[in-house]
Amino acid sequence: MSAFDDLFAFQRQTEALSSIAERLGWDQETVMPRGAAEQRAEEMAAIEAVLHERRTDPRIGEWLEQAGAEDDEDQRILDLIARDFRRASRIPARLATELARQTSLAQGVWAEARANDAPQDFLPVLNDILMLKREEAAALADGGDLYDALLEDYEPGATQAEIAALFDAMRPRLVALREEVLGAEYQPAMLQGHFAQETQLRLARACATAFGYDWTRGRMDIAVHPFSSGRWQDSRITTRVVESDPFNCLYSTIHEVGHSSYELGIDSDYAFTPLGRGVSMGAHESQSRIYENQIGRGRAFSGWLYQRMSDAFDGLSVPDADAFYATVNRVTPGFIRTEADEVQYNLHIMLRFDLERDLIAGRLDVEDLTEAWNARFLKDFGVAVDRPANGVLQDVHWSVGLFGYFPTYALGNVYAGCLNRSMRQALPDLDRFLAQGDAAPAVEWLRENMQRHGALYPPRTLIENATGEQISEAPLLDYLEEKFGAIYRL
Amino acid sequence: MSAFDDLFAFQRQTEALSSIAERLGWDQETVMPRGAAEQRAEEMAAIEAVLHERRTDPRIGEWLEQAGAEDDEDQRILDLIARDFRRASRIPARLATELARQTSLAQGVWAEARANDAPQDFLPVLNDILMLKREEAAALADGGDLYDALLEDYEPGATQAEIAALFDAMRPRLVALREEVLGAEYQPAMLQGHFAQETQLRLARACATAFGYDWTRGRMDIAVHPFSSGRWQDSRITTRVVESDPFNCLYSTIHEVGHSSYELGIDSDYAFTPLGRGVSMGAHESQSRIYENQIGRGRAFSGWLYQRMSDAFDGLSVPDADAFYATVNRVTPGFIRTEADEVQYNLHIMLRFDLERDLIAGRLDVEDLTEAWNARFLKDFGVAVDRPANGVLQDVHWSVGLFGYFPTYALGNVYAGCLNRSMRQALPDLDRFLAQGDAAPAVEWLRENMQRHGALYPPRTLIENATGEQISEAPLLDYLEEKFGAIYRL
Repeated sequence: MSAFDDLFAFQRQTEALSSIAERLGWDQETVMPRGAAEQRAEEMAAIEAVLHERRTDPRIGEWLEQAGAEDDEDQRILDLIARDFRRASRIPARLATELARQTSLAQGVWAEARANDAPQDFLPVLNDILMLKREEAAALADGGDLYDALLEDYEPGATQAEIAALFDAMRPRLVALREEVLGAEYQPAMLQGHFAQETQLRLARACATAFGYDWTRGRMDIAVHPFSSGRWQDSRITTRVVESDPFNCLYSTIHEVGHSSYELGIDSDYAFTPLGRGVSMGAHESQSRIYENQIGRGRAFSGWLYQRMSDAFDGLSVPDADAFYATVNRVTPGFIRTEADEVQYNLHIMLRFDLERDLIAGRLDVEDLTEAWNARFLKDFGVAVDRPANGVLQDVHWSVGLFGYFPTYALGNVYAGCLNRSMRQALPDLDRFLAQGDAAPAVEWLRENMQRHGALYPPRTLIENATGEQISEAPLLDYLEEKFGAIYRL
Repeated sequence: MSAFDDLFAFQRQTEALSSIAERLGWDQETVMPRGAAEQRAEEMAAIEAVLHERRTDPRIGEWLEQAGAEDDEDQRILDLIARDFRRASRIPARLATELARQTSLAQGVWAEARANDAPQDFLPVLNDILMLKREEAAALADGGDLYDALLEDYEPGATQAEIAALFDAMRPRLVALREEVLGAEYQPAMLQGHFAQETQLRLARACATAFGYDWTRGRMDIAVHPFSSGRWQDSRITTRVVESDPFNCLYSTIHEVGHSSYELGIDSDYAFTPLGRGVSMGAHESQSRIYENQIGRGRAFSGWLYQRMSDAFDGLSVPDADAFYATVNRVTPGFIRTEADEVQYNLHIMLRFDLERDLIAGRLDVEDLTEAWNARFLKDFGVAVDRPANGVLQDVHWSVGLFGYFPTYALGNVYAGCLNRSMRQALPDLDRFLAQGDAAPAVEWLRENMQRHGALYPPRTLIENATGEQISEAPLLDYLEEKFGAIYRL
């Protein structure tokens, strides 16, 4: 066995164990008995300790010194292993274990606090996690920027400075569009009625199937906060049902199908290697967003959905497919990021991006977070947050230690804008298929040009290779202005 | 940290990882997408490799040499860790790997051979496994008896000589009872009808609740072969539904609740220690059996079930609760162990016990196994086996290397007989509660006298402490003769 073979075999086992940890997380959010939280925390801590030990195993350093790559794929594998080894080696085992345990417990505390609108029950726990994350960031940054060090886990190569500049470029056009749309004379109707859970779930399955979701390698369950989980042969989606609002279920399903499709679309030769996963959260979000928005909320696909929903619910409160299209894309003031429309979504992200940068930098204390959130929300959205569950308690991310994650949602939107422009140019006929509930040509284009590569290229390279153009916010903003200008008759 | 603390902390992590492996097995049998089999095999292999490495970690030997126990519980923990370490260390890594590989492959071969009634496809594979198991037994036995060395994994402290003597004492009375019952004039009716899956599952949940199953620490799913899985805060049950035979679902549910209750009933201080699990397969089976048979198939509880089923299915094909009680306990000739009634079940076990002892001792060759099975079945049951799927191919056990496991089922029945006699003496009013669908007094008695101790005492001590008497086959046989004598009006 060569050093490369030894390293590769070792890595395969680590990848398998990491996949197990992710499956445990799925279990916890979907099917785990509610009394098992402490036990699961201990189990998660144990497997994270094993993973940490493997990721920092000194043999990796020795193998890396001796291993030679025969081609670009092998070289990229070595580079990715080296990066992870370098980062993991910087985090003390005690800190890794403590973070795993605290974040596992904090999820339950957060959920309870949100249900009770009681930030005081959650914020002390959040403060503990923030302290641990700052310690982690300092260890990773090695003298560099703390926030960038965390960002690297989610969007390798990105910096807060570059993202801040991108957001600064986006904000004026988004704010202007938001003002125009909210002030427009024509306002789409809301969908009225009661939509039974079972029927929603049946339609959600039909939507997933329309987007080519592979049910032999996946399944759909209910979760409080929809997510997708797993890779290779087993990538599962979750959804939720609000009986007054079927779009919540249907579009979160399509969104998660986008994530899972990316994982399932990766070249199967990459399974159990560092190439066998989405390369960044931004790249991931570009898939969930383009599935959900540019495709799923487009006029063509929504026309098909209108017919399916009319049949399933025995008529709808909107008169026709055009009105339905406007309803699906309705822009309203709202507190909740996950329910935000395409126009306002990125503004929600910018708020979190700035607050979490302040938290990590120590410019903002957790005890002042609720106030800071509410002040910023009022400033950005012109509305006062009515209750903590609609404000600072709405997202799970910070409770599980995901600082540096939020901006990748907006990056994903920007990437999706770029991909959509290229895809539409390559597939002039696409809407004809989407109008029949067939997203296969779009899925195939995305698979061929992007998904199958997994982590072979860095995120920017991946998107720029797929589109043949430099990444820019312009395609997304052009698309939004054109789409919402038409819907709102601006 | 003392050596004891180090060892204890290390063991906690091993216990947590072992619990994760069990949870993965549950996932595979209940919710896993069918296309994920290869990936799961790789994941299981990875976590088993980690577990094997930990169980044979040389530090355990060093810690054991230095660690001192402060009380009996700590001493028992040290003894159990030492036993497992000694056993794991005796098995060469090559043999462990080869056994894992062969038994993983053999399961599929066995299932295929059973489906095709083709023993010739399976027996060569079984022979390979037998050779490996004999090698394992020789390594474990260290000069002692091969079969006893294997038995130790399932029923610590038991010997084949002692079990053979017990079975010899049981056989004549069981055979005589079987003859009388099958020749009786009165024969209970079968339950006729179609019983919808959803209603069966609702009733199964009601039965589990009647037996005090803690839904906050468990859940129920469907599996091909019902099993229970997990411990401490998370012990899940599975069941199956046959729409022509609701007893299959209901009594396998109660059976699995017995297993899960034992795990959930263990003192919570023992979680993540070697004390935190059922002490033997026989002790485990005593719980599943007493829940299912002595309690669940008793006149009092079956009277409550009769009423519930009559309501749920809008009447039943049997006229009253007495007839229903006879139907629930109907004895018929049959080939299949898992479908056998209380009278004949142990005879099925004795057949397997003798055959597998001969295989391990080298007195019987695998190529003669089918003939030996058929001859023995004819002798014991007076019926010729009609096809291999109903004979030598019916059980999964040998294909996965479980030699020495079968006798623990019958030991469990004997223990259940002992426990039942003591419990009835202690709770003269029990039937009054059971007739109301309330098994709480029985469950509490079992928890207090047995379940809570986990693996603190060896199996015999555990049962004898609980009953205050020596283990004997007499209580079980007395109970069977009295119960079936009354039902069959002998």
